[in-house]
Amino acid sequence: MSVDANETGGQGTRRLARTAYSAADLDADLRWWDAANYLTVAQIYLQENVLLRAPLDAAHVKPRLLGHWGTSPGLSAVYTVLNRLIRRTDSAWLFVTGPGHGGPALVANTYLEGTYSEIYPDVTCDGQGVLRLCRQFSTPGGIPSHVSVETPGSIHEGGELGYSLAHAIGAALDSPELLVACVIGDGEAETGPLSGSWNSTAFLNPARDGAVLPILHLNDAKISGPTVMGRRSDDDVRADLQGKGWEPVFVEGHDPRAVFAQLTDAIAGAYETILGIQADARGGAVPTIRRWPAVVLRTPKGWTGPHRVDGRLVEGTHRAHQVPLSGVRDNADHLRQLEDWLRSYRPDELFDGDGRIVEDIAGLSPAGDRRMGATPYANGGRLREPLELPPVEDYALDIDRPGGLTHPTTRVLGDYLRDIYRADRRSDGGGTFRLFCPDETASNKLDAVFEVTDRCWQLPARPDDDDLAPSGRVMEVLSEHLCQGWLEGYLLSGRHGLFASYEAFAMISASMVVQHTKWLQHAAELEWREPVSSLNILLTSTCWRNDHNGFSHQGPGLIDTVIPLSPGVVRVWLPPDANSLLAVAEHCFRSRDHVNLIVADKQPHLQYLTVDEAASQAAAGASVWHWAGSERDGAEPDIVLACAGDVPAQELLAAADLLRKELPDLMIRVVNVIDLMALLPPGEHPHGMSETYFADVFTTSVDVVFAFHGYPRALHQLLHGRPHAGRFHVRGFSEQGTTTTPFDMVVLNRMSRYHLALEAMRRAGADGERAERLAQFCRSQLARHHDYIRQNFEDLPEIQEWTWT
Amino acid sequence: MSVDANETGGQGTRRLARTAYSAADLDADLRWWDAANYLTVAQIYLQENVLLRAPLDAAHVKPRLLGHWGTSPGLSAVYTVLNRLIRRTDSAWLFVTGPGHGGPALVANTYLEGTYSEIYPDVTCDGQGVLRLCRQFSTPGGIPSHVSVETPGSIHEGGELGYSLAHAIGAALDSPELLVACVIGDGEAETGPLSGSWNSTAFLNPARDGAVLPILHLNDAKISGPTVMGRRSDDDVRADLQGKGWEPVFVEGHDPRAVFAQLTDAIAGAYETILGIQADARGGAVPTIRRWPAVVLRTPKGWTGPHRVDGRLVEGTHRAHQVPLSGVRDNADHLRQLEDWLRSYRPDELFDGDGRIVEDIAGLSPAGDRRMGATPYANGGRLREPLELPPVEDYALDIDRPGGLTHPTTRVLGDYLRDIYRADRRSDGGGTFRLFCPDETASNKLDAVFEVTDRCWQLPARPDDDDLAPSGRVMEVLSEHLCQGWLEGYLLSGRHGLFASYEAFAMISASMVVQHTKWLQHAAELEWREPVSSLNILLTSTCWRNDHNGFSHQGPGLIDTVIPLSPGVVRVWLPPDANSLLAVAEHCFRSRDHVNLIVADKQPHLQYLTVDEAASQAAAGASVWHWAGSERDGAEPDIVLACAGDVPAQELLAAADLLRKELPDLMIRVVNVIDLMALLPPGEHPHGMSETYFADVFTTSVDVVFAFHGYPRALHQLLHGRPHAGRFHVRGFSEQGTTTTPFDMVVLNRMSRYHLALEAMRRAGADGERAERLAQFCRSQLARHHDYIRQNFEDLPEIQEWTWT
Repeated sequence: MSVDANETGGQGTRRLARTAYSAADLDADLRWWDAANYLTVAQIYLQENVLLRAPLDAAHVKPRLLGHWGTSPGLSAVYTVLNRLIRRTDSAWLFVTGPGHGGPALVANTYLEGTYSEIYPDVTCDGQGVLRLCRQFSTPGGIPSHVSVETPGSIHEGGELGYSLAHAIGAALDSPELLVACVIGDGEAETGPLSGSWNSTAFLNPARDGAVLPILHLNDAKISGPTVMGRRSDDDVRADLQGKGWEPVFVEGHDPRAVFAQLTDAIAGAYETILGIQADARGGAVPTIRRWPAVVLRTPKGWTGPHRVDGRLVEGTHRAHQVPLSGVRDNADHLRQLEDWLRSYRPDELFDGDGRIVEDIAGLSPAGDRRMGATPYANGGRLREPLELPPVEDYALDIDRPGGLTHPTTRVLGDYLRDIYRADRRSDGGGTFRLFCPDETASNKLDAVFEVTDRCWQLPARPDDDDLAPSGRVMEVLSEHLCQGWLEGYLLSGRHGLFASYEAFAMISASMVVQHTKWLQHAAELEWREPVSSLNILLTSTCWRNDHNGFSHQGPGLIDTVIPLSPGVVRVWLPPDANSLLAVAEHCFRSRDHVNLIVADKQPHLQYLTVDEAASQAAAGASVWHWAGSERDGAEPDIVLACAGDVPAQELLAAADLLRKELPDLMIRVVNVIDLMALLPPGEHPHGMSETYFADVFTTSVDVVFAFHGYPRALHQLLHGRPHAGRFHVRGFSEQGTTTTPFDMVVLNRMSRYHLALEAMRRAGADGERAERLAQFCRSQLARHHDYIRQNFEDLPEIQEWTWT
Repeated sequence: MSVDANETGGQGTRRLARTAYSAADLDADLRWWDAANYLTVAQIYLQENVLLRAPLDAAHVKPRLLGHWGTSPGLSAVYTVLNRLIRRTDSAWLFVTGPGHGGPALVANTYLEGTYSEIYPDVTCDGQGVLRLCRQFSTPGGIPSHVSVETPGSIHEGGELGYSLAHAIGAALDSPELLVACVIGDGEAETGPLSGSWNSTAFLNPARDGAVLPILHLNDAKISGPTVMGRRSDDDVRADLQGKGWEPVFVEGHDPRAVFAQLTDAIAGAYETILGIQADARGGAVPTIRRWPAVVLRTPKGWTGPHRVDGRLVEGTHRAHQVPLSGVRDNADHLRQLEDWLRSYRPDELFDGDGRIVEDIAGLSPAGDRRMGATPYANGGRLREPLELPPVEDYALDIDRPGGLTHPTTRVLGDYLRDIYRADRRSDGGGTFRLFCPDETASNKLDAVFEVTDRCWQLPARPDDDDLAPSGRVMEVLSEHLCQGWLEGYLLSGRHGLFASYEAFAMISASMVVQHTKWLQHAAELEWREPVSSLNILLTSTCWRNDHNGFSHQGPGLIDTVIPLSPGVVRVWLPPDANSLLAVAEHCFRSRDHVNLIVADKQPHLQYLTVDEAASQAAAGASVWHWAGSERDGAEPDIVLACAGDVPAQELLAAADLLRKELPDLMIRVVNVIDLMALLPPGEHPHGMSETYFADVFTTSVDVVFAFHGYPRALHQLLHGRPHAGRFHVRGFSEQGTTTTPFDMVVLNRMSRYHLALEAMRRAGADGERAERLAQFCRSQLARHHDYIRQNFEDLPEIQEWTWT
């Protein structure tokens, strides 16, 4: 069921959510909370006697105590209160746990609501199940200590902090009926990415998107010190959030009854406000900027846990962060304190004789997919529909002959994306595909998308703005973290998308790529997690062609970050031209559970392959470009010239051209590699070329001069294990750059046509008069270039361009 | 001169800074501004006739127009106003340019103040100098388009956005007399790192540190769209900044006279407030939390530039971002408009007959080192004093025999850091060394530092806080971006420090490592830039020993990020034990202009080397551990067992132990590599081992089984070019992990002692009955381990520990 704005707006909504919270309701909720807290502590501490049917003995306690108590009771309180709201309003909520180390709390709550046992039938709804639940936690062969891919209802790990709110917003985009509760710890709130995520209000459209309710959980402390927002005044925290478009309600206290009542009211009020905002927007009211509600929850760290341990205050301090009572097996006092703590939740009243949660508690759970542990939004593959892709042939460039045409490579992708947007459009203005890009859609020549949609923008517009509207669905914000975080949330909740970035600045969110890859790697091992769309990252404005912006804009390092990650997940594509980019893009948009890096520059480049040739090559990973070589049938070439990437292909082909013309006896083979992972030995990556095909392409012993888009040694790490890997001589980006010309970039990095031709002659052992003449020509061209750079104030000679004949 | 709180506090200061701004002053400042704007436009456009002594002709215009006009006039306005304040108050200011693409503006202003010509004598103070200034800009062989390492007075590049405020704060720490003007563009303000940097108020101590005046420059647009803060209301922007501890004054307008008057008043007022806050704090007044002043400057993008071009609004829109008039050589209208634009600054009144800046303008500059282009704070090597380092021997562990002792490796470093802090302490409570760490100092076992200092904290404290004080000088904030950004600013302004991070989460600021490395690489080419202290990054809580936190906490990828960067700058250290860590730390603290990654875990580890042995090995890069092998003099070993890193050393030594005992005839050599870059061929890195030494250590042909801390193929990329690189068989972190035991981590990644022993036997061709028996033992141990993991609920066998005999 989706929340219907017409039915729920106005006073009706108000009544619906803000029904009086009776003492009986409160008692009931506190019982759920007790059960969740009990199961949390039990998971951290117990390996036997988990229902405490007998006095606690040291042997019942785990030998190694791992886990985080501090944040857990607060998380469970929010979960409890939301459960009641969901039952009352039959609304769809997704729970994002920013403080991901509160894993045992989320496991406990999803166990209480029954989803845990449905997904993991071994963890039964009885005493044996509770025993398994406890034993598996943070145990070898069991489950991780964090809210992780294994946790029902989660799209967020929360190990590397900073992305909870971005993930929450991403899930809400184009999900008009979804409400996302996003708990943000005050530790995470100190990070840059989270701080920047508050700006998402400028991009969330109440008419078309769902909503996010941030619950900033200020429990004052991190691992061993206070937190900045925890120690700021309410006024400061309010101002901070208001300035970013949120209106916080404060809930603070130590007494559970008081806090639960306040929190219930605050969340119900926020729900009403959200529905009011949405109803206005969906009812076609003139949009006014209204602040989205938020909750600031100040509760003690380790709430309800041991107040003092060994004479020191623990509850409410950083000392409650992990395991408040340590050395329990060897410390009788601690053991007794642990038992008191566990018994304070009155386990005998929580579980029946079989160890089942008693009915009045279990009955507090929402039903079916409304349970936050069961929501399909957290298992996006259940919601995902394949993207409707127009035939790439319709966008392909006509190629008469290789190199006969120059075209900005990414522009064709822009046309393709435009029609993906067009085909994807829903009647309500939403859809299932979005482009995310830090203010560079036009700069990256993808602006054809603006023919069918706009930049998404909820703040005031001006007449001179270009392609900007609240209804726009291109996400531009000058934050790689937000772009990627939004997209990750969008994908994990079942949609499709592309993150396009300047190549160098994709490194800003490199750690997010690592973490998302880890998520997908482990998700693939869980049968219940349906596959989701791949994370597709287009790296454009590349190192070779950021000549105009200088050294800070020149860096292909994300390739190096991705290469060592899970071979089941990561792929790196280096389309040499526009039709290859189309073929790769189509493949990536169809693929699932992968991280695809696609490197393609936006500037005009030579075009080589027909779309059919491009598709064949993309499938093969690499191929021989016979038209560019000078082989004679049957004989091995004297030298293999290989390339990967657009600028490398151009320089390598120019070198091959020089060699073919000047040294007609030299047998040259030209190879292009489009799928970088194809270079890895088979068995090390699913795309690794077979030994036979690798030998067909590269021979087994001929020297290879390789022009590569990225850092040269990245190739050597891939090639280890291939026959005679030492015969590969790679030129690539060698961390030389500045504001200069494109040609100077290839010279500075010794990957110019002249460098390649010289290297090829050296490796092929080409000698004789003609070879010497060609070598001299190459050296003189380089000398001429050096003179040009030195003397450019006086003399601006044209760099001789490569011509394909 | 330092600002003396006693002299300048109270009304005296007020008078000093807020002297009436006369019409003549305003006229004078506008003339400086005209000159700066003229030179900015001239740099972007002109290659001839740069003083416009003749009518502008198409041939005078550069063939390729590169650079960013939009932000430049605003930057120059701030610079102009600050110059007057500096002259009036004789205060020391550093200018940090967040919108780094305003390069031509900073070049123009530093040229006007004379510093540019002092540093680059070729760019003379006359017409020829102006010609060179214009021609060199964004030109091959000239200077980059950004405010970069080449720009006088800069410690910040501003190409990759997000770090300006962190750099500014870092420079202010422990610089009590310094004032840092930090211009933040509204594009940069959208980034996560910048958003989080506003929190720095919680860490800046007015008694001991300098101050930062953020000038948030809202000119509304980025490359092609509006900015979030640019479109928020003044109330929202005010609230946002207030919530983070800043009190903004708004300056807004289009009319230069009005804006200059307002801005002069706002900056003078901010100066007074800063001095008031400092005077109170330094006078020993009871500290009260006061907001630091900030300026919000709303001026049109491309202010004073072409208002409309081809009928479209340009000034005040994103269309003014780069080059507002394009195609000037081929468009007579644009050419005329360009000339009108240039002449609007009345160049004839700015330059004398020789092309020198006229005296009344030049006289507006502060003098000597007070000029912001000449401040030594921006050329920190001028201020830097070597760090006083206690002898590492005093902290070394006594080593009777290798492996005879277990100790948490980082703890000795904590002791060393404590005494560095102690030796460094200044009488005013400041110093020149700081540790930066995301709330993990204690967790990383470096907490000995708290014996002599505290966590830095300017917000309210509570009685139960540990080691927390306003005077504390350990910087803990849960933001890797802030930690590293502060440290970079601290180093570039002449101090020393260490950034200690969980290994996996150091990837969060990986792109900052890349950018800082680029800065140092280019700085080394500039004679006028004095060397600064190295950026030292300790990666601890490593992948192998984050068994308790799970997969998100396990990732050695920063090594892969660093390897391809400038060999002149980057080093990667893998100390196998505590004494090695001490030796490496001492080296790194003495080194200059490097980026040192030091990887050392915090958990108890076996200890092997005396401090002398450790120092020798660190100098050599790698060495044979004769005591662990079974070579006989004169003969080549049957197998080389190599390791790099603490856990790899432990597993490899255990494997060697098994092999020595069970196969006494097998000749084993054990090698440890501490300096990863030593593996690179000589010529590729200054630390690359000579061919001879490499052969002495690794032989030239014997197979090597290598246990490596990081991703295995990272080693292969280093080893390419070494003799028979294919003989190296590397085990390392293979992206397998979860919450588990340390031993399971090495098993999952196939780097356990048993895997290594099996691999060594295979590679050495060891066969026979004893070899088969050992192989069976290894396999059975692994099977036993697998059973343990599978059955750990029932059975918890001890993992057999390696014993050194």
